[in-house]
Amino acid sequence: MSPLAEPSRLPTALLDELDAFLLELNRAAAGMTLPLFRGDHGVSNKHERGFDPVTEADRGAERAIRALIAARYPHHGVIGEEYGEDRPDAEFVWVLDPVDGTRAFIAGLPLWCTLIGLRFQGRPVLGSIGQPYLGEIYIGHPGGSRLLSAQGERALQVRPCPNLTDALIATTDPEGCFNGAELGAWRQVRAAARLARLGCDAYAYAMVAAGTMDLVVEAGLKSWDIDAAIPVIAGAGGLTTDWRGEPVGTDGGQVAIAGDRACLEEALVALKRAAN
Amino acid sequence: MSPLAEPSRLPTALLDELDAFLLELNRAAAGMTLPLFRGDHGVSNKHERGFDPVTEADRGAERAIRALIAARYPHHGVIGEEYGEDRPDAEFVWVLDPVDGTRAFIAGLPLWCTLIGLRFQGRPVLGSIGQPYLGEIYIGHPGGSRLLSAQGERALQVRPCPNLTDALIATTDPEGCFNGAELGAWRQVRAAARLARLGCDAYAYAMVAAGTMDLVVEAGLKSWDIDAAIPVIAGAGGLTTDWRGEPVGTDGGQVAIAGDRACLEEALVALKRAAN
Repeated sequence: MSPLAEPSRLPTALLDELDAFLLELNRAAAGMTLPLFRGDHGVSNKHERGFDPVTEADRGAERAIRALIAARYPHHGVIGEEYGEDRPDAEFVWVLDPVDGTRAFIAGLPLWCTLIGLRFQGRPVLGSIGQPYLGEIYIGHPGGSRLLSAQGERALQVRPCPNLTDALIATTDPEGCFNGAELGAWRQVRAAARLARLGCDAYAYAMVAAGTMDLVVEAGLKSWDIDAAIPVIAGAGGLTTDWRGEPVGTDGGQVAIAGDRACLEEALVALKRAAN
Repeated sequence: MSPLAEPSRLPTALLDELDAFLLELNRAAAGMTLPLFRGDHGVSNKHERGFDPVTEADRGAERAIRALIAARYPHHGVIGEEYGEDRPDAEFVWVLDPVDGTRAFIAGLPLWCTLIGLRFQGRPVLGSIGQPYLGEIYIGHPGGSRLLSAQGERALQVRPCPNLTDALIATTDPEGCFNGAELGAWRQVRAAARLARLGCDAYAYAMVAAGTMDLVVEAGLKSWDIDAAIPVIAGAGGLTTDWRGEPVGTDGGQVAIAGDRACLEEALVALKRAAN
């Protein structure tokens, strides 16, 4: 279906049930990733030839998530980075990146995330950005988003930032991830912004939802890099588009996430020049 | 005194006393920074004109640290980012950056650090890299370094990485922090390395000490950006030099931190070309 078509509404009771299940999936994933983070895997770095902790974490978490989905919702589809597609045309499809930010994971940096999204009739309707070492889960749907942490639960709300000159912006790795035209567009956006932050992967999306960042620009994403974030951003009052300002397609690609539409529009002036 | 001269040894009992005091300083600093992180300062982003939470955190933490030093060791000197120099030629001088990574702090990212170093006879002998939101303090002196966290205490040890092609490297913001020659040198090092990570500020030094990263390259540092890390790295078995491979001067500047001397030497081939 077209990403612009309006899907049926999910009944509230079902949404609540799926929201609770999503937390269950996060806990299961954390049980597989956290013990492997920072080499707490019983294998020293000197002897790990053939043993890749991030791959083990990725695969173990995705297997755990898939097992829970298969047991609870056997008719749901799943798209995951490690184990491919099952029933990608089902009415409900889970989209998984068990360890987003594999470089952060390998480097011992606690900014990698577990991304779990749910599509209903082809559109992202529920998602979570989880960071188990921090004990944080940013979770939401277009009706509202919230942060669960050791400090309890609080609502997530983007902040107003009508001018790009006031914006705190982010991308992960300009020279590593952008082609020439994209790098030029990024530099133009950065030159106009207040300040830029690098190296955050999907955790930057959570910061937009939490109202501490204003704009994130990425390119070359896969669906599992972005799908989970779309409902979290929407529920916090923000926007996710491609570099033309259109809804992000089901294949990922170039993405802009913003808290304030005016700030996004200003950035799109530059981004559109490098849009695919 | 020359940075190459060998200073007198600190008596063990005094080093232990100063180590315990350093933890006290970290707790006092956390009491001023943490409540201001992520806008837990009672002032919404919309109304914060004239109120800069990171500046308040910086100043408040530096005041708290200076007050404790003045009360306990009134003859010690202090060099801090916010309040300048007091007795910089004293036998003991504390070097402070209450919030290293101000951009991370502003952005809500839990990778900013409190850096507290101690010089004895002009050389860094004790230091800490603290991240209160994570509850982590990386602390050490050339005799040994350790991590204090919610999981308890463990020794810090760099990992072997004799070849740059196997190295996980980091810098904070290549296009934002390096001049043209430095950017060229960074790109050469990055092209040779296994993978690179951006945006970590001083937290990357802690990752080298912990053995999850191999090399960090920075330029344009002030003394308070690096002094505290030198003993932590040394105590974990690593090295801190300038881009010529010489000891870092008391003014900061271009810095390379590595866990393995061979990896450092390989990187220095490129870095030396852009050395000041």
